[in-house]
Amino acid sequence: MRLAELSDSTGVAVATLKYYLREGLLHPGRTVSRTQADYDETHVDRVRLVRALIEVGGMSLAAVKRVLDVLTTPGEQRLEVLEAAQRTLAREGSAPAACGVDGGPPRGRVHEWMDRRGWLVDPADPFIADLERTWSACDDVGIGFDEERLDRYADHMEGVAEVDVRSVPADPQAAVRHVILGTVLVDPVLIALRRLAQQHVSRTLERVDPAGPPSR
Amino acid sequence: MRLAELSDSTGVAVATLKYYLREGLLHPGRTVSRTQADYDETHVDRVRLVRALIEVGGMSLAAVKRVLDVLTTPGEQRLEVLEAAQRTLAREGSAPAACGVDGGPPRGRVHEWMDRRGWLVDPADPFIADLERTWSACDDVGIGFDEERLDRYADHMEGVAEVDVRSVPADPQAAVRHVILGTVLVDPVLIALRRLAQQHVSRTLERVDPAGPPSR
Repeated sequence: MRLAELSDSTGVAVATLKYYLREGLLHPGRTVSRTQADYDETHVDRVRLVRALIEVGGMSLAAVKRVLDVLTTPGEQRLEVLEAAQRTLAREGSAPAACGVDGGPPRGRVHEWMDRRGWLVDPADPFIADLERTWSACDDVGIGFDEERLDRYADHMEGVAEVDVRSVPADPQAAVRHVILGTVLVDPVLIALRRLAQQHVSRTLERVDPAGPPSR
Repeated sequence: MRLAELSDSTGVAVATLKYYLREGLLHPGRTVSRTQADYDETHVDRVRLVRALIEVGGMSLAAVKRVLDVLTTPGEQRLEVLEAAQRTLAREGSAPAACGVDGGPPRGRVHEWMDRRGWLVDPADPFIADLERTWSACDDVGIGFDEERLDRYADHMEGVAEVDVRSVPADPQAAVRHVILGTVLVDPVLIALRRLAQQHVSRTLERVDPAGPPSR
């Protein structure tokens, strides 16, 4: 198909597609004449992937490019592949925390909490600093919570992670695609489910107890 | 304190603070002379809140402004307050889905799935369309999943929502603050927990079964 048809199939403007081609986010079409190239289903799939990562996953173009690099570089060992995939994603949120939150000691309360919990996690994992930062941000605005509540959240996210990990295909190449996309694109699914579940739970509690849910 | 001191206390540049004052994100200080105003702890708190919503919650300035409007307008009934608060947040992500995903019928598969599940949710809730869109985005890039897997995610997010709802204070004014901030700022906590839990779960499964987790 021509570029105009690729644009029709994907709902993405021709100018944007040209930009993706220039930036290497989209592989070139097959040259058919000096001014024309032919695009196929692989181009449709790639454009949908790029749009999903940007619009649903909220990723920057630079992050999309890193993700595409990992997706097109086959890995070897399952665990290494999974961890490399996670690290690709981690860099996205690793802007310096200019939150008024001081960096804290190298081993903060998240490390201690994880030790207590027995989580097998690389102690240098960037998501530890992320959790440290977001947990502190909650404290800073006066909605802080204790380790007990963090534990209850962690119990449920462990359940989510089990669903995630068990759905990873055995083939390493398919696995890396699944992990990256599943991690980025399932986040907004979970966020929407949380909002809807909050409504369901608060309506259910209101109905049972007209005075409202107990404060704690 | 002076503006320069407010800047030191919060780590936010004077120029940015002036911008917040002009845009109404920060309430004016007490005038002490023709060129000088005095700021106090309420200003420090407000600046921290604005920064947390932007940096941790990833909100736009317009969304932060809407959140501050709701926070400073007392509500009446707990349920209405909670739902108004949720609606404020919904508008943030409601950019038109230009994802190549057709809008689908007014009652899509999420409505049917929720009916089956018995969730008490406003059928016009914007997060239903959000879930429809993000679930379809997963299909579009080939990591689609069935209702059974959505149910397992929903079970866990219902658990998260129970923790959320039970921690809401009884006072309506405090409740609205708690719901908005808890919703926006706990999202990244959950996302970080999901990443760490994925690592823990995949390492645990690797150890038990060197061939890797079962593919399904």
